[in-house]
Amino acid sequence: MSETAHADPRRGSLLIIGGSEDREDDMQILERFIALCGGPDKRIAVLTAASRVPERMWAIYDAAFGGMNVTSRKPVHIASRAEANDAAMAAEVAQADGIFITGGDQKRLLALIGGTGLDEALHAALARGACIAGTSAGASAMSAHMLADGKADLHPEKGTVSLGAGIGFVQRVVIDQHFSQRQRLARLLTVVAQNPFLLGVGIDEDTALLIEAGGGIEILGAGAVTVIDGRHMVSNVADIRNRSVPEMVDVRLHLLPSGSRYGAAGDTATPAALSDFLKIVTNIA
Amino acid sequence: MSETAHADPRRGSLLIIGGSEDREDDMQILERFIALCGGPDKRIAVLTAASRVPERMWAIYDAAFGGMNVTSRKPVHIASRAEANDAAMAAEVAQADGIFITGGDQKRLLALIGGTGLDEALHAALARGACIAGTSAGASAMSAHMLADGKADLHPEKGTVSLGAGIGFVQRVVIDQHFSQRQRLARLLTVVAQNPFLLGVGIDEDTALLIEAGGGIEILGAGAVTVIDGRHMVSNVADIRNRSVPEMVDVRLHLLPSGSRYGAAGDTATPAALSDFLKIVTNIA
Repeated sequence: MSETAHADPRRGSLLIIGGSEDREDDMQILERFIALCGGPDKRIAVLTAASRVPERMWAIYDAAFGGMNVTSRKPVHIASRAEANDAAMAAEVAQADGIFITGGDQKRLLALIGGTGLDEALHAALARGACIAGTSAGASAMSAHMLADGKADLHPEKGTVSLGAGIGFVQRVVIDQHFSQRQRLARLLTVVAQNPFLLGVGIDEDTALLIEAGGGIEILGAGAVTVIDGRHMVSNVADIRNRSVPEMVDVRLHLLPSGSRYGAAGDTATPAALSDFLKIVTNIA
Repeated sequence: MSETAHADPRRGSLLIIGGSEDREDDMQILERFIALCGGPDKRIAVLTAASRVPERMWAIYDAAFGGMNVTSRKPVHIASRAEANDAAMAAEVAQADGIFITGGDQKRLLALIGGTGLDEALHAALARGACIAGTSAGASAMSAHMLADGKADLHPEKGTVSLGAGIGFVQRVVIDQHFSQRQRLARLLTVVAQNPFLLGVGIDEDTALLIEAGGGIEILGAGAVTVIDGRHMVSNVADIRNRSVPEMVDVRLHLLPSGSRYGAAGDTATPAALSDFLKIVTNIA
C-alpha cells in the first residue's frame, strides 16, 4: 500500500497474469516465473490469502512447481491480520526469491494484508530482487489503485465500478484480468472515464504482462494485453447521472499481443504513444 | 455503389440503425424515421431485398408504419437483378420520401442491387431529399466499403474479416451493427488494423446514428455508437501471419451515447478528436 515508503531502487520483476494460466501442459508463464526467480533451486512462496480455499490453491501450485522440480516451495496461508503481522513469516517472505499470489478475491487479500508486515515484506522482496507474480485477483491487487468491484456490462456506466487500495507495486494504473474472455472492456472504460489519471490495463487469461527490473516489458502467453489511456479524453462523465453511459471521445487504445517486447536493449523501438505507458509501469514502487 | 456519380448537393438524411430497433412499443427510432421523411402522409418504401423472407419483413414494417398512420407505404421486393433494373420500380423509389432497408444479409442485398437502376434510384432519392434508413444488414450496406464477413471473436485476428462493395452513401467508414450485444469490437478492430483508411463505426441494437442533411449527427435510441479511428495507429499487421493477433498502438476510440449531438447549430462544441469523423460521415455521397 505504501506509495512512498519504498525508495530503494527496485531490483525485482513483476509478472502480472490474467488468470487461468496453464498449470498442466507447457506452463509457459509459470516456467517463466521460475526462471525469473533464478531457477528451480530458489525459494518460492505461494501466497494464498486471496482465496477462501487456500489449501486447494496451494495444492494446485504445489503440483505445478513440484513438476518443475522446484524443491524449496511453501505456502503462505494468512487467515487474519494478526497472522499477516507475524514477524518470522514476514522475514521469510522478504527473503524469498519468488512470491506467487494466487487468485481469489482481491478485496479479501487486501483486507487481510494491507498495511501489515507481510505487505512490507512483499515490497522488500521486490526491492531486493525477487520476482513477484500474481494471477487473477493476485494481478489486480498489484496496483496502488485496485479494481474492487465492477458491474458495467455492454457499455461503460457511471457509478458501476469501485476502486480500493491495492498492494501498490505499480502506480497510476488499474489492472483487470480475464479481460477478453469475460468481455471486461466496458468496465475498464468505466474506470478510466471516472479516473482518467489511471491507465487501464486489461490482461487476458493465460497471458501475462512482465515488467522487468531493467525497464522493459513483455507480453507472454496465449492472449493479449489491452491498454486504455483516457488522459486526452473529452467526456461528460462529471455531469451525467449514475447509471448513464458517458460520452468518451479520444480514448487511446493499445492492443499488445503475446510476444510484444518494448523498452529493453534489442527490442523494436517503442511507439511514441506507448512510451508513457512504459514509463509509468516500469517505474514500479 | 457509385462513388463519384452523385455530385448533386445532398438534401436527404441517413438513419443508420444497429438492428433490433423497437417495432412495437414507443418505436423511437421508427417514429424519427417517419418524421425525417416529412410525416405520416409521405411515401414510404420498404426495401426487403437483404432478406430471404421478404414477406415476413414487410409484414413487420407494414404493421409498425401502419400503427403510425403512414398511409402511403409499400414494399419493394427484389428477387433478381432484372427486377432491380425495372425502370418503373426505380422511378418510384427515386420519388419516395423515405426508404427503409431491412435486415437480412448485406451480401445478398448488394448482389441483387449493386450497380442497378435501383441502386441509382436510392442515390437519387437521397440527393432529392429523402431519408434513407437501414437496419442491421441495411445499415452495413450503406457504406462504400461494406463489412461482408468477419469471424474475429476475442481478439482482432489478421485475415478474418472481408469487405465488399456497399451502396456507398457514406465514404471512408465501415459499419457494424448489433455491436455491443454481439461483442463485435474485435472484428471492427480487425477491419481497422488492415484498413486504416476506414473509420470503424459500431452501432448497438435499438440505436441509430442519424446523419442529417445539414451536417449534424445525432445518436438516438437505447445504446451507443462506438467509433474506431486507426489512422494514427502503429501496427505490425503487414508483417504477421494470418490468424495472428496484431499489435495495435494508438487506436483512437470514441464512445457516443444516445442523446449525443454534434455539428449542428446549438449543439455543444464538437471535440477536436471527433471533428474528422464528423466531416467524413456528413460528406455523404
